Amino acid sequence: MAEIINFKEVKKDFSYYIDELTALCKNDLSSINAVILEKLDSNIPLIHQIASYLINSGGKRLRPLLTSCSFQICNNQNNKEQRHIGLAAAVEFIHAATLLHDDVVDESKRRRGKLTANEVWGNKTSVLVGDFLFSRAFQLMAQDESSKILKLLSDTSVTIAEGEILELTNDKNPTINEGIYFKVIQGKTASLFSAACQVGAMVTSVSHENIEALKTYGINFGMSFQLIDDTIDYSSSFQRLGKNIGDDFKEGKITLPIILAYLRSNASEKKFWKRTIQTLDQKEDDFQKAVYIIKKYDCIQDTIKRANHFANIAKDSLGIFSDTKFKEILINVTNSSLTR
Amino acid sequence: MAEIINFKEVKKDFSYYIDELTALCKNDLSSINAVILEKLDSNIPLIHQIASYLINSGGKRLRPLLTSCSFQICNNQNNKEQRHIGLAAAVEFIHAATLLHDDVVDESKRRRGKLTANEVWGNKTSVLVGDFLFSRAFQLMAQDESSKILKLLSDTSVTIAEGEILELTNDKNPTINEGIYFKVIQGKTASLFSAACQVGAMVTSVSHENIEALKTYGINFGMSFQLIDDTIDYSSSFQRLGKNIGDDFKEGKITLPIILAYLRSNASEKKFWKRTIQTLDQKEDDFQKAVYIIKKYDCIQDTIKRANHFANIAKDSLGIFSDTKFKEILINVTNSSLTR
Repeated sequence: MAEIINFKEVKKDFSYYIDELTALCKNDLSSINAVILEKLDSNIPLIHQIASYLINSGGKRLRPLLTSCSFQICNNQNNKEQRHIGLAAAVEFIHAATLLHDDVVDESKRRRGKLTANEVWGNKTSVLVGDFLFSRAFQLMAQDESSKILKLLSDTSVTIAEGEILELTNDKNPTINEGIYFKVIQGKTASLFSAACQVGAMVTSVSHENIEALKTYGINFGMSFQLIDDTIDYSSSFQRLGKNIGDDFKEGKITLPIILAYLRSNASEKKFWKRTIQTLDQKEDDFQKAVYIIKKYDCIQDTIKRANHFANIAKDSLGIFSDTKFKEILINVTNSSLTR
Repeated sequence: MAEIINFKEVKKDFSYYIDELTALCKNDLSSINAVILEKLDSNIPLIHQIASYLINSGGKRLRPLLTSCSFQICNNQNNKEQRHIGLAAAVEFIHAATLLHDDVVDESKRRRGKLTANEVWGNKTSVLVGDFLFSRAFQLMAQDESSKILKLLSDTSVTIAEGEILELTNDKNPTINEGIYFKVIQGKTASLFSAACQVGAMVTSVSHENIEALKTYGINFGMSFQLIDDTIDYSSSFQRLGKNIGDDFKEGKITLPIILAYLRSNASEKKFWKRTIQTLDQKEDDFQKAVYIIKKYDCIQDTIKRANHFANIAKDSLGIFSDTKFKEILINVTNSSLTR
């Protein structure tokens, strides 16, 4: 009997490649999740409750996946050591801690479509559970006993905090320049992407050049990833779970489209940005007007160009490695992230 | 020519012995302060400003002094290594980070007579600068390269966070029992006192028993110290810079005098505590009434008794060490702390 074969084409987008990356790192990911679950445990029920809420709230586990994939790229198959598992969990804990504190600082009400922890349990709890997760991350590093990795991750934590504080210092200020903004996103996003990649390599016996290559990959993929994130708020052709178009604008959040638009605006448009972003005095059709000015000066297109620039550096940095499915998936994830 | 000698007696109180401890550890303290100053540096001016405000706001540096003094007690004079300096600074950074986050959680307006950082710069900045200081602490540990010490201090950080969260879980609840309360203060206060002492010993070549002795000293001195702190709010015979009598009561803060008073109260008094502490519905003379009930049931005296119990264990634990001026000063500080 003849079967009807469905030739419906699969859309090979960012989600598709994240699923593929997840499948490739399936075994590692289940070990990482087991460590995360174990370390969420606490005698204090509230800690377990909130930490689980956050950790299980539908994140992609992108950073631990980067650690696992970097490990696979670098690992000599004979090496059965599994140090990267605990370190990937540590990276996810640092990420979770910064999310909790970010949501307090940004007064966010929702993340990935769910209420934020600060909305459910209050700011105080989020501050302290963030501290708990952060401390747990360093406990995991202590178990690893590598002072180089501890240096990397503590340096990264300082850089993240500095990036966040630099962002807060320039809160609702559309007149900052691109250089300052790059420093902000390098701190708050790209540095942990980079560290996630590096630790995966550092537990193997690869040379310094290989670790440097993954460092460069991570920082540049992180920059590219954040810049595309910035465009989603103003671009009606994309919609992402839990982030509504116009949210950044309503909060007066400074992102590259706004920075470019302000720099290119005429005097009356500059006044518009100061009113809507700096003083948050917004009228009903102001978001439409903002999108109009952003479009008029090609600010979304140019933000995507910047993102492409970083993505290209990221992909080229992988040239040092031989062709494997692990290298290929990183390239596909980086490419597809540009149109997510 | 005959001189007139002033025989005015010096009052040998807690401040006196802290001054003596400071003098004994003068060289170490100036090195520790130099490291602190160096590590407060950041490209982000706001970080430097706030961190300096906090670090230089008149604290006694009690924890770094404990590290220095423990080091002196254990150190073979031939050992010229100075690892304890950076670790003492790390301990102070952990302490400073928790102060910043505590003041956000407690909504405190003043500390040691000065406005708190959250009052001056806002909660958001305090959360992020706290994260910065915490990360700096782990950077200092990374420099030290001892995985045992990293384990101790990351375990301690987890314990501190758990203690704070347990306290928050029981916020304004006068019905908790003494066991839970001891767990709270062991976490939020005593664990870092103990870690401060231990790291001073761990960088020397002393035996495990000696490190255990200082661990026991630190945890018990910390418990005693916190319990006496609890009494100051209700005890008119003492007054401390920056803490006004009645502050804890006004905030509904749960401390041992309140817990004991509630447990010993009759039905109508229990109602009083629930109204004033749990719902914070306080009238003008309620504080006087609270002090009256606390006095009626000897709750201050009995809190001091508990503090004495812990202080005795602390002092006895030092019996393993030979008699030196460093051991003597720890005993004097512990004793005088009971009547501060």
